[in-house]
Amino acid sequence: MHQIDLNCDLGESFGMYTLGRDEEVIPYISSANIACGYHASDPVIMEKTVQLAKANGVHIGAHTGFPDLLGFGRRNMTLSPKEAKTYTMYQIGALEGFCRAVGVSLYHVKPHGAFYNMAAKDYELACAICEGIASIDANIILLGLSNSQMEKAAKTVGITFKQEVFADRAYEDDATLVARSKPGAMIEEEELAISRVVSMIKKGAVTSINGKEIEIKADSVCVHGDGAKALAFVKLIRQTLKEEGIEVKAL
Amino acid sequence: MHQIDLNCDLGESFGMYTLGRDEEVIPYISSANIACGYHASDPVIMEKTVQLAKANGVHIGAHTGFPDLLGFGRRNMTLSPKEAKTYTMYQIGALEGFCRAVGVSLYHVKPHGAFYNMAAKDYELACAICEGIASIDANIILLGLSNSQMEKAAKTVGITFKQEVFADRAYEDDATLVARSKPGAMIEEEELAISRVVSMIKKGAVTSINGKEIEIKADSVCVHGDGAKALAFVKLIRQTLKEEGIEVKAL
Amino acid sequence: MHQIDLNCDLGESFGMYTLGRDEEVIPYISSANIACGYHASDPVIMEKTVQLAKANGVHIGAHTGFPDLLGFGRRNMTLSPKEAKTYTMYQIGALEGFCRAVGVSLYHVKPHGAFYNMAAKDYELACAICEGIASIDANIILLGLSNSQMEKAAKTVGITFKQEVFADRAYEDDATLVARSKPGAMIEEEELAISRVVSMIKKGAVTSINGKEIEIKADSVCVHGDGAKALAFVKLIRQTLKEEGIEVKAL
Amino acid sequence: MHQIDLNCDLGESFGMYTLGRDEEVIPYISSANIACGYHASDPVIMEKTVQLAKANGVHIGAHTGFPDLLGFGRRNMTLSPKEAKTYTMYQIGALEGFCRAVGVSLYHVKPHGAFYNMAAKDYELACAICEGIASIDANIILLGLSNSQMEKAAKTVGITFKQEVFADRAYEDDATLVARSKPGAMIEEEELAISRVVSMIKKGAVTSINGKEIEIKADSVCVHGDGAKALAFVKLIRQTLKEEGIEVKAL
Repeated sequence: MHQIDLNCDLGESFGMYTLGRDEEVIPYISSANIACGYHASDPVIMEKTVQLAKANGVHIGAHTGFPDLLGFGRRNMTLSPKEAKTYTMYQIGALEGFCRAVGVSLYHVKPHGAFYNMAAKDYELACAICEGIASIDANIILLGLSNSQMEKAAKTVGITFKQEVFADRAYEDDATLVARSKPGAMIEEEELAISRVVSMIKKGAVTSINGKEIEIKADSVCVHGDGAKALAFVKLIRQTLKEEGIEVKAL
Repeated sequence: MHQIDLNCDLGESFGMYTLGRDEEVIPYISSANIACGYHASDPVIMEKTVQLAKANGVHIGAHTGFPDLLGFGRRNMTLSPKEAKTYTMYQIGALEGFCRAVGVSLYHVKPHGAFYNMAAKDYELACAICEGIASIDANIILLGLSNSQMEKAAKTVGITFKQEVFADRAYEDDATLVARSKPGAMIEEEELAISRVVSMIKKGAVTSINGKEIEIKADSVCVHGDGAKALAFVKLIRQTLKEEGIEVKAL
Repeated sequence: MHQIDLNCDLGESFGMYTLGRDEEVIPYISSANIACGYHASDPVIMEKTVQLAKANGVHIGAHTGFPDLLGFGRRNMTLSPKEAKTYTMYQIGALEGFCRAVGVSLYHVKPHGAFYNMAAKDYELACAICEGIASIDANIILLGLSNSQMEKAAKTVGITFKQEVFADRAYEDDATLVARSKPGAMIEEEELAISRVVSMIKKGAVTSINGKEIEIKADSVCVHGDGAKALAFVKLIRQTLKEEGIEVKAL
Repeated sequence: MHQIDLNCDLGESFGMYTLGRDEEVIPYISSANIACGYHASDPVIMEKTVQLAKANGVHIGAHTGFPDLLGFGRRNMTLSPKEAKTYTMYQIGALEGFCRAVGVSLYHVKPHGAFYNMAAKDYELACAICEGIASIDANIILLGLSNSQMEKAAKTVGITFKQEVFADRAYEDDATLVARSKPGAMIEEEELAISRVVSMIKKGAVTSINGKEIEIKADSVCVHGDGAKALAFVKLIRQTLKEEGIEVKAL
């Protein structure tokens, strides 16, 4: 039977500020990437989100970000390898404490925003992240962009890499993402987006922006829970996966 | 043979800013209270300080502070119990990651500055801290002010409490610290300060500010490494303890 | 003709995080207390909020807070007088830059949250705030709690003080606010709340929690724009003031 | 008579953390670039540094940085033009408040660290900074790298640009700085460094790394006050300028 993980960024509120509809989206996903206080979140929210994930049987991962609350971790920052490694360790450690408190494991790390995008292209940065993960626990999985420097770095460092794919993004012939600035980068039609995901899971292939059928391995699909439209899409994808006989299962 | 722990706050630098002479003081102590990024420190410094402690065979504890870098954690802040508990958890978790990376344990927690002083007097706050510790690992020791609300809270919550004493402070008849604002609060004469510590260790007693001999149990003595005078004092106390046949040993 | 100022806290979003319905409430108010990046806001939001206030002909004041984004400035912090003074100056200066850029003046300062509440009771703290204001521009008004230490401090320092009253709060016989923890502290019935405001404006008096008619001078009424209910109340109070022949006018 | 400005970064301490020997270097300089709380400093330090500059008759400029205390503003961050503009306005405004309080003017803006380096190469970023300056006060001078995008942007926006030169750096044939990573980038010999400065001032020319005499206009020389060696160099340059009949004068 085909399987797929559905991952979603959760716990991105901060103090008085609320972001996302965590309680509404969590029943539909299998993995939660939980913010760790760098690009978003705080300890009160981390505790609450870990408890929410546990109550819903959802696997927990650390959503490690740049130390940039003001920019929500979406602005490129040039960290040294030592900074990238230790910032990763700090955030994993902090979240793991909350996991231990309720007796669940921390399964994966997914860098956030600009940290993710930079690491996808920068091998040295990606290695620093992987070394941070490995130094805490070599069994923690790196969830990252398919066919990116993150995959290569994970192999070098010796940690497990799982491929994340995007329902709403077009792919180049080499299975990298089409830059958002290019026409056709976004797949806006929902049914098409979902049929592409089903194709990735069942056939290990998808049509590139140039019309070629390209190989792509989907371990996890990224979904969102930050609005009514996003929630409707999650429900639709979940329903379709069921109809297609694809099991939603954590990494 | 009599034993005592010597503890010192380490790893309080931040980014470009350096504070303390960690490398110089660490050979003389048995326990390091390492800052966790709230009142001071950052992940690069935490990693380095944990490695330094390991290399010197010094036990590591989390020096948990208020989220107030600007005030170095020395300004009172009114946290809710949930905030106090989860801020404690976050900081312990973050530091523990760095400990795991080098294969050492986190032995104790010592709240910093205003967090320490407020918890010494506020039972509810002290309980919140203890619950934070216990939820991570009930074997972690709370190092706190003798005869304070922290001791009472540790008992209630069921974690081990160890008493910290101060060589340079006078005590009231009830074994609480004389407020800094009162005349005679500070013991400025070094030899007297050290002989008081020896008395606390060997006899379990010290002379109060009113001239009474009072009972006091010393598990750990707080020393400082932030200046030439402080370092000279640490060496002197260490030498005297040796001459008195008192072993310096971590908690 | 009777006059009253309606003030509202605006510009309390932060980065990706949105708070309040600034555009909806601003047509109904005469003064905006704009956050300055300490308890909330950032420079992008400050510029936008100042432009919004200008476009609506609303007077601008600095809503100065504690340096505590995580706690939204609602947690007590013990600042030294020098800190309180310079933090006030910093925030006024920062906001004033945005005012100059669009050619409007900064008319008043209203401390936020715990800063306001502490200064209402602590004369030394209130004086430090007033000195911060006066050192920038002695023509800037302090908007604060009626019959509080802020009023006394403003007199000492020589700046203008204007009294803020609350529609939804009960008053003690000495015209101080009934503590929120006491029964009857909140006036929940909207029509009663508004009739009390009208009484304060027209008669300079209101009924205390003990049933006495007490004197109270209302220079400004605090309203909120952070929800549907709050907005409905603002419209209702505005409508009632019009019917009562009371002009809404900035300080 | 030839003239030159000597500028130095001051007020870069933060809370408990001290950096630089401001009191020692200030008698030798004519302009102080004062940090504004983004990459360093806080309101207490800003007030003190502005007072120090006034007492020494030194002109004040805003040393505007990235919002990155942890990285001391030395890490590249990709700000949007709106962010770069409003962050500049915020910092100028905040510092100007302290200037007004003691009756001195804010004369210039010098971006700090990575903000400076990025703006030197990125015209759009440099324009955003210039627009931030102009929107506060078009008379404020931008002090920036000679022959950089900052100069071009200042011209476009219509503010005055003054050229900063470096005694300890080599120049390419086109009068841009030799990248630090290239051999020969740093001029380590003090007497040579100073004679190059004298040449820039008197002849408007200096020898490039390739041995050509190139034109370069020096409005201000950057000096440092963060160590014994830096201080000795400042005294030496000051003495040499005197002997050469060059007047040290603010922009």
